[in-house]
Amino acid sequence: MQDTNEKHSGSSRDISSLPIGVFDSGVGGLTVAREIANKLPHESISYFGDTLRCPYGPRPLTEVRTFARQISAWLTEQRIKLLVIGCNSATAAGLETVQRELDVPVIGVIEPGARAAVKATAARRVGVIGTVATIDSGAYTKAIRSLDAGITVFSSATPRFVEMVEEGLRLDHNPFEDIMAQASAIYIRPAFQEIARDYLNPLKRCQIDTLVLGCTHFPLLTPLISSIIGSEIGIISSAEETARDVAETLARRGQAAPDNSNPIYRFATTASDLGEFSALGSMVFGRPIKDAQRVSIEQLEKALQDKEN
Amino acid sequence: MQDTNEKHSGSSRDISSLPIGVFDSGVGGLTVAREIANKLPHESISYFGDTLRCPYGPRPLTEVRTFARQISAWLTEQRIKLLVIGCNSATAAGLETVQRELDVPVIGVIEPGARAAVKATAARRVGVIGTVATIDSGAYTKAIRSLDAGITVFSSATPRFVEMVEEGLRLDHNPFEDIMAQASAIYIRPAFQEIARDYLNPLKRCQIDTLVLGCTHFPLLTPLISSIIGSEIGIISSAEETARDVAETLARRGQAAPDNSNPIYRFATTASDLGEFSALGSMVFGRPIKDAQRVSIEQLEKALQDKEN
Repeated sequence: MQDTNEKHSGSSRDISSLPIGVFDSGVGGLTVAREIANKLPHESISYFGDTLRCPYGPRPLTEVRTFARQISAWLTEQRIKLLVIGCNSATAAGLETVQRELDVPVIGVIEPGARAAVKATAARRVGVIGTVATIDSGAYTKAIRSLDAGITVFSSATPRFVEMVEEGLRLDHNPFEDIMAQASAIYIRPAFQEIARDYLNPLKRCQIDTLVLGCTHFPLLTPLISSIIGSEIGIISSAEETARDVAETLARRGQAAPDNSNPIYRFATTASDLGEFSALGSMVFGRPIKDAQRVSIEQLEKALQDKEN
Repeated sequence: MQDTNEKHSGSSRDISSLPIGVFDSGVGGLTVAREIANKLPHESISYFGDTLRCPYGPRPLTEVRTFARQISAWLTEQRIKLLVIGCNSATAAGLETVQRELDVPVIGVIEPGARAAVKATAARRVGVIGTVATIDSGAYTKAIRSLDAGITVFSSATPRFVEMVEEGLRLDHNPFEDIMAQASAIYIRPAFQEIARDYLNPLKRCQIDTLVLGCTHFPLLTPLISSIIGSEIGIISSAEETARDVAETLARRGQAAPDNSNPIYRFATTASDLGEFSALGSMVFGRPIKDAQRVSIEQLEKALQDKEN
């Protein structure tokens, strides 16, 4: 196979220094941004968290699609070289539309997660949990079965998991600690465990050997989920696989940031409380979030209007 | 993300020593087997080339699907741990059916090639060439646009390319030489060039920046194709990407062959001339093919019947 890395080198030098855009309904997409930052330490990232309108999960797909189009328009106005929809609900609702509207490549989190699950399942029985919007869209089932028609997919909406993550983050408000690796012990509370058991036991009975976390908030619940379903069921988060897709896409186009560049991380949000966004976000991103920018819904609406005119 | 490598270690020790099955209408799929052998030097491979019924390209999809089911049944009778449909026409016609019928994972060559193209195209204009069966199925267009709805796909059937490869291989009958890297110069013949120009110039005018070789025979034509479309258009062969999918699938399931195992390569074919199959196949596989086994159409039909009963 011929490598395309060397091509477009004239224009790609400018493009390569642009940031990668990532957005989510809140701080959950920072699990994806974190994997990108870990895997590609020279890449700058512009993150957008639509905290004011979080959660997206219970909203109609058409509304979520509009939100995705607005944020995509706002992020491309700031110039980005690639966009990651770091939110399963927004991917299910808006990926195709945003791909058609934008000039830069747009990567969602559903296909990478589906692909990882297909590779992992030996029993060819896969469970998927996510928001109501994601599960109702059937996007995971479709993506998994288009890769392996012989796989049986069991999917279940677990809307309260998003609330649990948000609440759990507030319980132990300790920025800069590695919450992903250790502090998730906070989720081992009886009330949380009971909700999780109600959600997960039926899936366990379906004899799945692989469970896809179809929401970017859920990696923060891995210790809790794993304690209930047992360690013999593999847990797939899209974040790692998505970061790999980002890396390969940039490498193949010759648009990766140069090895000597220092990454710049920028954060914007619709959250009314910038301090809370930064504190919670820092825990999830695993790096300090400073100087987050406040963006109003009107600015998002205007970005989309400007793009359409 | 939790790794599943450690799981199923009880039963996977037996499974891990089984070969990977690969089949094609002829010797073209050996470009895929070759990539797998290069990437996974400890894995055994059982290759099946349906040379007697080659080419699949001009045949109806339903007929090709039956061929794919027969060969899959025969290969699984010999025990394999994973099946690669190393033929685009057979992937388009039979992947889903075979995935539903088999207990082992089945990987086709279309989705990996589509994925590589999506990552490579900066202009988001992709060309696809292949057999009539593959192009008419629309499988590449569907696979590419399901990954990036913003990509425009230009596809064109190039049936005479398969004949050119088969004839070209016979022209320079020199086994064990690295035909992929060097000897393809044999294709730079005026008659071949004219055919290639007729096929490729219209695609070039569509301002594609990426061309997918949607037939496993075509990597052998890369020098010729590249000389016509120009080096600024990236050429994608599914072989490398497919081999990577195989590697990841085995690794995630803990079914990779142990590092100390010596690979065994077995070859079976419906070809009436075993010597010719071995000689041409050796060139494409880049390793000597010895003791190829002759399998009759009746044996294939019986394998499918046995599986159905």
